[in-house]
Amino acid sequence: MKIIALDSSGLVASAAIIADRTVIGEYNIQYRKTHSQTLLPMLDELKKMVELDLDSVDAIAIASGPGSFTGLRIGSASVKGLCFALKKPVIEIPTLEGLACNLYGTDKLVCPIMDARRNQVYTGIYEFVKREGMPVSYGLNCLLPQCAVPIEEIAGTCNKYGREVIFLGDGVPVFAQRLGELMEVPYGFAPAHMNRQRAAAFGFLAEEYYNQGRAVSGADHAPVYLRLSQAEREKRKKA
Amino acid sequence: MKIIALDSSGLVASAAIIADRTVIGEYNIQYRKTHSQTLLPMLDELKKMVELDLDSVDAIAIASGPGSFTGLRIGSASVKGLCFALKKPVIEIPTLEGLACNLYGTDKLVCPIMDARRNQVYTGIYEFVKREGMPVSYGLNCLLPQCAVPIEEIAGTCNKYGREVIFLGDGVPVFAQRLGELMEVPYGFAPAHMNRQRAAAFGFLAEEYYNQGRAVSGADHAPVYLRLSQAEREKRKKA
Repeated sequence: MKIIALDSSGLVASAAIIADRTVIGEYNIQYRKTHSQTLLPMLDELKKMVELDLDSVDAIAIASGPGSFTGLRIGSASVKGLCFALKKPVIEIPTLEGLACNLYGTDKLVCPIMDARRNQVYTGIYEFVKREGMPVSYGLNCLLPQCAVPIEEIAGTCNKYGREVIFLGDGVPVFAQRLGELMEVPYGFAPAHMNRQRAAAFGFLAEEYYNQGRAVSGADHAPVYLRLSQAEREKRKKA
Repeated sequence: MKIIALDSSGLVASAAIIADRTVIGEYNIQYRKTHSQTLLPMLDELKKMVELDLDSVDAIAIASGPGSFTGLRIGSASVKGLCFALKKPVIEIPTLEGLACNLYGTDKLVCPIMDARRNQVYTGIYEFVKREGMPVSYGLNCLLPQCAVPIEEIAGTCNKYGREVIFLGDGVPVFAQRLGELMEVPYGFAPAHMNRQRAAAFGFLAEEYYNQGRAVSGADHAPVYLRLSQAEREKRKKA
């Protein structure tokens, strides 16, 4: 099975190609360029490097939100175009689930946090549960589905579980100090190479979701914003 | 602190740039091109993408072996050239330690295996040990230093610890079935996005080693082969 995975939901632009459960190409950039300048050129570069025949791809995975509204639209528009041209399905990966997969197999609680501005984070709480059978494998279990809440609220919810928590995501540098004041259970932060979106992790989860029949058509795909945009909020306020 | 990390020790060619504990650029390719065709063009591509001023880099990290002899030489020669031109130190990361860091923070034993041909694997056994202090962080503890041994020997050593083991590396597809016969403790394999060398993981460890004063000069750097080359073996045989 061959999957292209893309992510432009946050500060990182990321593209990956997974073939037969091997990441044959992965490209991640976190820099001030906008995703419209980076995402498709990165995929094009990878495609050339591994001489990818686009027709041989089974599906295209995308970080489907939440995240930066503009970033999500760039990712979704790119995927819709690719799927329309190539006649391939989309596998929508909730952003926080893809982020959690950076820590596949950990025995700690996983709490990804993305800076959502306006004193909120996009977040969720996840754990990895051992499946039956050998070799051992783990499934991602969602304890709190992705949501937009103040950092105080998610810290309080984490404290209730009484388990060590690992935080990751672009919300960490913003809220690390505040978490130090709020956390009552042992907690840590994922290291540099595990703490931001990676399309390769989304691609890994996408293969599981594809096998569960969770692919949709490019036409049906839409990003999940979780909140109203600024323009929508202002329109409602006026009305 | 800013680190360039390179790895060409195995099937993957990988380059990463880490600045202030954030991976600002990462590029990984596992494809049949040789590393001499991919490694420096990948770094050049990353450099352009993040507008990197090479003079602002503090050190260059390299997977220093073991691994493919040709791959190691391509990596070492590239790093020596860069360090000589830029007057920067090298941080040598034992390949198996860098691989183990893909699973930073896990409570299981970590056993990276690379196919070393001639019925051997390059391997080692590692665990992550919680450091004192909050937030929680983990140090890499080496239980068996990297070595070249038959798969039966490393499986037997793993069994003695009586703990769940995670295997990763390009030796997994080669020896997965054999491990199924040999393993007496619970064991699993790292998923696609965590099972091959990533320069970003080497860069993470490099920052720790740099802070421990473990950098060397480009002139002093040499790869660690762990075994004699085929040419050397045949020369000794004749003599």
